[in-house]
Amino acid sequence: MDNVKSYVEEHKDRFVSELVDLLKIPSISADSKFKNEMITTAQAVKTELEKAGCDLVEICDTPGHPVVYGEKIIDKNLPTVLVYGHYDVQPPDPLDLWNSPPFEPVIKETALHPDGAIFARGACDDKGQMYMHVKALEYMTKTNQLPCNVKFMIEGEEEVGSKHLGWFIENNIEKLQNDVILISDTSMIAKDVPSITTGLRGLSYMEVEVTGPNRDLHSGLYGGTVGNPINILTKLISSLTDENNHITIPGFYYNVEELSAEERAKMAEAPYNEEEYKKKLDINDVYGEAGFSTLERGSIRPTLDVNGIWGGYIGEGAKTVLPSKAFAKISMRLVPNQDWQEISELFKKHFESIAPKAVTVKVNAHHGGYAYVTPIDNDAYKAASKAYEKTFGKTPIPQRSGGSIPIVSLFEKALKSKIILMGFGQDTDAIHSPNEHFGIWNYLKGIETIPYFYQNFADSQK
Amino acid sequence: MDNVKSYVEEHKDRFVSELVDLLKIPSISADSKFKNEMITTAQAVKTELEKAGCDLVEICDTPGHPVVYGEKIIDKNLPTVLVYGHYDVQPPDPLDLWNSPPFEPVIKETALHPDGAIFARGACDDKGQMYMHVKALEYMTKTNQLPCNVKFMIEGEEEVGSKHLGWFIENNIEKLQNDVILISDTSMIAKDVPSITTGLRGLSYMEVEVTGPNRDLHSGLYGGTVGNPINILTKLISSLTDENNHITIPGFYYNVEELSAEERAKMAEAPYNEEEYKKKLDINDVYGEAGFSTLERGSIRPTLDVNGIWGGYIGEGAKTVLPSKAFAKISMRLVPNQDWQEISELFKKHFESIAPKAVTVKVNAHHGGYAYVTPIDNDAYKAASKAYEKTFGKTPIPQRSGGSIPIVSLFEKALKSKIILMGFGQDTDAIHSPNEHFGIWNYLKGIETIPYFYQNFADSQK
Repeated sequence: MDNVKSYVEEHKDRFVSELVDLLKIPSISADSKFKNEMITTAQAVKTELEKAGCDLVEICDTPGHPVVYGEKIIDKNLPTVLVYGHYDVQPPDPLDLWNSPPFEPVIKETALHPDGAIFARGACDDKGQMYMHVKALEYMTKTNQLPCNVKFMIEGEEEVGSKHLGWFIENNIEKLQNDVILISDTSMIAKDVPSITTGLRGLSYMEVEVTGPNRDLHSGLYGGTVGNPINILTKLISSLTDENNHITIPGFYYNVEELSAEERAKMAEAPYNEEEYKKKLDINDVYGEAGFSTLERGSIRPTLDVNGIWGGYIGEGAKTVLPSKAFAKISMRLVPNQDWQEISELFKKHFESIAPKAVTVKVNAHHGGYAYVTPIDNDAYKAASKAYEKTFGKTPIPQRSGGSIPIVSLFEKALKSKIILMGFGQDTDAIHSPNEHFGIWNYLKGIETIPYFYQNFADSQK
Repeated sequence: MDNVKSYVEEHKDRFVSELVDLLKIPSISADSKFKNEMITTAQAVKTELEKAGCDLVEICDTPGHPVVYGEKIIDKNLPTVLVYGHYDVQPPDPLDLWNSPPFEPVIKETALHPDGAIFARGACDDKGQMYMHVKALEYMTKTNQLPCNVKFMIEGEEEVGSKHLGWFIENNIEKLQNDVILISDTSMIAKDVPSITTGLRGLSYMEVEVTGPNRDLHSGLYGGTVGNPINILTKLISSLTDENNHITIPGFYYNVEELSAEERAKMAEAPYNEEEYKKKLDINDVYGEAGFSTLERGSIRPTLDVNGIWGGYIGEGAKTVLPSKAFAKISMRLVPNQDWQEISELFKKHFESIAPKAVTVKVNAHHGGYAYVTPIDNDAYKAASKAYEKTFGKTPIPQRSGGSIPIVSLFEKALKSKIILMGFGQDTDAIHSPNEHFGIWNYLKGIETIPYFYQNFADSQK
């Protein structure tokens, strides 16, 4: 693989422009208005996989958005790497906070990215990180250095909880057989502090609807007489956490994994500066569960966040309305041993039970997933670690992320293989936020590093 | 005035169609997009006042939307009635809950309105009730029975707190001199239970903005580490009322007028059926401040209602965002002796003081007004009461309303005259709600009743 650096150097402009083309397609899986764009994006990924050297690529229908499957099998006796990624993106709103339109990619230099970063929804999450694998495959095939078999499973529903990927896997167990699953949908600590994600939080995403009177009312004539669904919704939500920001849902903490003192001490060694952290976010203070450090609250502890709330008059000026309904989207990040379906049930039962008689409450589950922790003593992890050593000149730090890839735990259960999370993005990439971007340096570094993983892993299986 | 019934009967179709024409103009004062429609509406009102017999009508500019002033002075020595009303309307949203477009009036029969009701934004509040006075003037001038002078002050900013009416009055004290102010912007108990509104609540309307991190964040990577502005907003709002739904803002109740046992007993005599009340609104229970009846909570007690709340992702599906900002519109209904400016200050001070360091809070006042109570032992009230006796065959019940007409208390202060609130609408008219309507029977009954007030009042001043 020793000419990978020069190959990347030689082709980098095309690598970037091919990604820019993909980023122009608004593949927003959460919004049914973009159904056609989802298909167009899947077709674009198919074409790129073929160009990169796959012998077989298919767009596989599911009850939801299609999965793009690709493979290059060079020798049944060699190990197989399954690459997972997703071509769908988060909704871009609030649009007014973007400095350039989310689906018109622009390249700009930033303090962190002197070589430029691509600004667009999906630049990092996950079109950019997914394309690193496609380009890495191109390098290995064009230079006849692919040391093992490779399969790609690129889905279109990750941002809406991989609704139908479980169904797809169940129906393609044979086809998806592999020795290790490789995913780039996480971040690393810094350009000079490479890290491998060894843990992900689980997720339970709920939506609640509170209904009071059967129509919007005049807040003067009715104010004080009937339950205002917004007032009551704020009481219900606020009661879900206590004064120490512990979650009050009965049974919520029942299975929560408690880390040992050593494990917590080891975590505390990761480079982190709270003053810088606050400065970057313009906040006067951090906030969260009492008794845990910021790093711990963001990775090994479960959380409850309102992701959206709405009700009543939200336009310009004033309207003295007492609304009929109020809504909220509420998600909980979960840790190992918490069963997301059980948590969703506990949430529903609790939320319905605390609502006063004056309103009716509807609680629906959007989606969820289990937390995941990967061991660091197996061949796959070692292969990844050595790959970073080669290209970064440093041993990567194993790090547990606060994010979730709900489907990861299912991979392990259904496909019986370990998952390696090699992320090349950074926390500052503003994924899920306005002005999402991906450093060109990071993109190219990923393309350069991935082939070494293939080599190390293939060698380890001989 | 004895031919008023037949005059109304003869001209009712035109009276209705003239109102329908006015209702077609979307005069939404809260939304600057409708600035031109406001002017068009003012011009339409001017034309109708001229047709009704005013000798002088002018559209008076203010720093905001214009005021339509009209007068017919028949004899300087006779008393003068000043009619106040407004031509602006509430925003119509949520639009999807209207059965017909808010500015395309339709006439439909309902259980309560066998003679039909006009469905449109502003049908009752206040274009319909304001037009009753224009048509009543037409009757009195066309039949040479106008017993006194009349002035009209029809403003365009009532639904946004009469922002500039104070300014207009200060600058036109002479012109607006009168012996009584007549307003139809309230409701009566029922068609067979006429009532006169003797009290209005005050209002303080605030808007709050809670800011956490400087950008929307990924709720996985940051969930648990920083203050989520929505979670915190729900805690702040929920803390504004305690478990008995008493408002917790320090000093809030300081000046609240406490009614005597007799007064409360008298109130309790008003016809009211809680089961019917709940049935009409499809609620299992009423809700509000402990220790007071529903009627009391809706009229003589102050309240705090969230009129709108928004933040984060409110689109279809799920977005795992930890938003940068969350907002709410919060209004308080006030009772006699509460100073709305002082209450707004107390709210601001308190809300800012309870916010945790993890967020910054902005609190702005939209508008407000004082509560008002009118005595029932003066000539004006007696003249109104006798007018109802004549046309309804029943003595009207004096009733305190929960609504507010912020400007009313200013009228008394600035113009030194009493205000009579002769409302012909009903609580079921859905003012400020989708499908606002005004019964044609109510509209015509108002036109029929008003001239008797003029006669009774003029006689009482001889």
